[in-house]
Amino acid sequence: MRTQVGIVGAGPAGLLLSHLLARAGVDSVVLEARSREYVQQRVRAGVLEHPTVELLREVGLGERLDREGMPHEGVSLRFEGEDHRIDFTDLVGRGITVYGQQEVVKDLIARRLADGGDLRFEVSDVTLDGLADSPVIGFTDADGQRQELRCDVIAGCDGFHGISRGSFAPEVFDREYPYAWLGILAKAAPTQHELAYANHANGFALYSMRSPEVTRLYLQVPPDTDLADWPDNRIWDELGIRLAAEGFTLNEGPVLEKGVTGMRSFVAEPMRHGRLFLAGDAAHIVPPTGAKGMNLAIADVRVLAEALTPYFARGDESGLDAYSDTCLRRVWRAEHFSWWMTSMLHNAPDGDPFTRRLQLSQLHYTVTSRAAATSLAENYTGLPH
Amino acid sequence: MRTQVGIVGAGPAGLLLSHLLARAGVDSVVLEARSREYVQQRVRAGVLEHPTVELLREVGLGERLDREGMPHEGVSLRFEGEDHRIDFTDLVGRGITVYGQQEVVKDLIARRLADGGDLRFEVSDVTLDGLADSPVIGFTDADGQRQELRCDVIAGCDGFHGISRGSFAPEVFDREYPYAWLGILAKAAPTQHELAYANHANGFALYSMRSPEVTRLYLQVPPDTDLADWPDNRIWDELGIRLAAEGFTLNEGPVLEKGVTGMRSFVAEPMRHGRLFLAGDAAHIVPPTGAKGMNLAIADVRVLAEALTPYFARGDESGLDAYSDTCLRRVWRAEHFSWWMTSMLHNAPDGDPFTRRLQLSQLHYTVTSRAAATSLAENYTGLPH
Repeated sequence: MRTQVGIVGAGPAGLLLSHLLARAGVDSVVLEARSREYVQQRVRAGVLEHPTVELLREVGLGERLDREGMPHEGVSLRFEGEDHRIDFTDLVGRGITVYGQQEVVKDLIARRLADGGDLRFEVSDVTLDGLADSPVIGFTDADGQRQELRCDVIAGCDGFHGISRGSFAPEVFDREYPYAWLGILAKAAPTQHELAYANHANGFALYSMRSPEVTRLYLQVPPDTDLADWPDNRIWDELGIRLAAEGFTLNEGPVLEKGVTGMRSFVAEPMRHGRLFLAGDAAHIVPPTGAKGMNLAIADVRVLAEALTPYFARGDESGLDAYSDTCLRRVWRAEHFSWWMTSMLHNAPDGDPFTRRLQLSQLHYTVTSRAAATSLAENYTGLPH
Repeated sequence: MRTQVGIVGAGPAGLLLSHLLARAGVDSVVLEARSREYVQQRVRAGVLEHPTVELLREVGLGERLDREGMPHEGVSLRFEGEDHRIDFTDLVGRGITVYGQQEVVKDLIARRLADGGDLRFEVSDVTLDGLADSPVIGFTDADGQRQELRCDVIAGCDGFHGISRGSFAPEVFDREYPYAWLGILAKAAPTQHELAYANHANGFALYSMRSPEVTRLYLQVPPDTDLADWPDNRIWDELGIRLAAEGFTLNEGPVLEKGVTGMRSFVAEPMRHGRLFLAGDAAHIVPPTGAKGMNLAIADVRVLAEALTPYFARGDESGLDAYSDTCLRRVWRAEHFSWWMTSMLHNAPDGDPFTRRLQLSQLHYTVTSRAAATSLAENYTGLPH
């Protein structure tokens, strides 16, 4: 079996890359360990930056997104019992769109299949060889048959726990945060239209929503938290305390999902090894506070598709040579922004009172200085690709 | 002996307070442990924020400042061998003025004496009593005579090591940084007009100037640095390395002064205890990176003078009651800004590579985003009083 680009992983990065390449006349095969149903249901990120939305529209993926996505023109920072809105439209003339990652994945899979794309789910025992000059991906297909996919280039879009990054020894930059997020999905109508990021003496909380009937809520908890210690009523009580603000009501409802997620910053450099190119979570992880994870993955594969097109058209390797550096500039900006949001909003368990006062001063400044609010807004809504 | 306001300390805070009160018809006596000559020669801060300059002009202290002070319309951030100018005038329409703290002190002493102000130098064994309702300052005068100064209010302007803060038990917020500044004053003509803040793998360096013939230069060093390990040629070599940038020349010359200063953040809350009001370094210390120390002291005493005037005029205590909170808002803004500048520019000795990458991303962002550069500029040039 042969293709031009072998893509490992059918998340937003791998699927969008396959779509962008198809539009440029480049063949690819996408290999995914999970089933189609699984990846289409997997709840992850939900905030699309403005440049992400623009790109999806531009490449013909905007139809359902424009119909069902929820455009937000701001977020609020909530602290000391007051809510302060950061008005994105006023500050930077662009907003964000709330649209679940699994919806993007559904749209991409549907579109690739309609266009005759080659997507293979439930493959196992993936191996990568010949990365220096003649890449071969070995895998066992859904029927248990061993296969070999020869290709010119491999795109490692298989996430943080995937095998691609382990094929070489990039330099690693890493930070684990001393807290995690306990997230719930609740069948409760949102009582406000936009996200609220709350800094409270008890810890961070985030108010967000997935649809007009479903609220998505998060609480900062210790990393080793056992869900058994958090019955629903304790979660609602704590959300009520941390999110409290003048005029705000918290709608409660049945909890549909509950989970604890660690918080980590991670970057592998470079993002290329021979004919293997990493994209998305395979190369970098951000804590979710800045809502940057999926957006970075999408920015990566845009750069990669734009580098592969002239390579296949006329052997021009300049884009491929620049790929890692180009992506890493945006990656580090997002890493910094995500770290900044995270450290401003969470209570470090060992935080000294001096740090707490700095946090509050930074929050006050961010909501009172137009320059500071603009800085948050331009990063949150996404700097231009 | 009796006065309305007993002021402990003849630094910029105490002297300016005495001047502002005199203009409002309120009597004061200033007590200072050192000699007049000593305080007039003591080299400290050298950057006046825009609101500081405006205030000094407004109260008749702008003449020599306007003649001899050096207006700066920007600073530069230097990293990875490149210099990036932050253009204050373009970004926020105001700049800073380089004018040594000892010059401000000289102007204030001359003016107070010309106006018949009561300044007593070389006093010792100062004691503060009756802070709840009938303050008395005890001291031994320059002739060795024990004296008692009864007053309505005491202003503790006696610096970080003074006795005023020790008269009560404020809550203390403190951070010591794991580095210090080795500073030199050199008889060498500055080769550039504005300050340059350099982030280098070897550590921070600052290029500044005190006059058209005198350069003021700083190097990040470990806190326990012995000056004996830093002969002049080692200092010049290291400055050459850290400040290197396209088109930059470092003028060397005889070293007139050399010293090591620790870096600390410190805030005491509240800044009031009964009839005692703390101002300036007696209540808060910032690391010098943001050039905020003297400016905060001046902002404090403006608030205090404006609170004392209605108090003495008609017994209105509202300003005094608000004094601490009013000052602390500005203090914490300056603490945050100074911490931000410090942590962006210095190499933490235990700094992990992830932190180093964040620093560089923040520096790149600060010099490329108008919002981020404006944020630096508005803080550096001084938010309005």
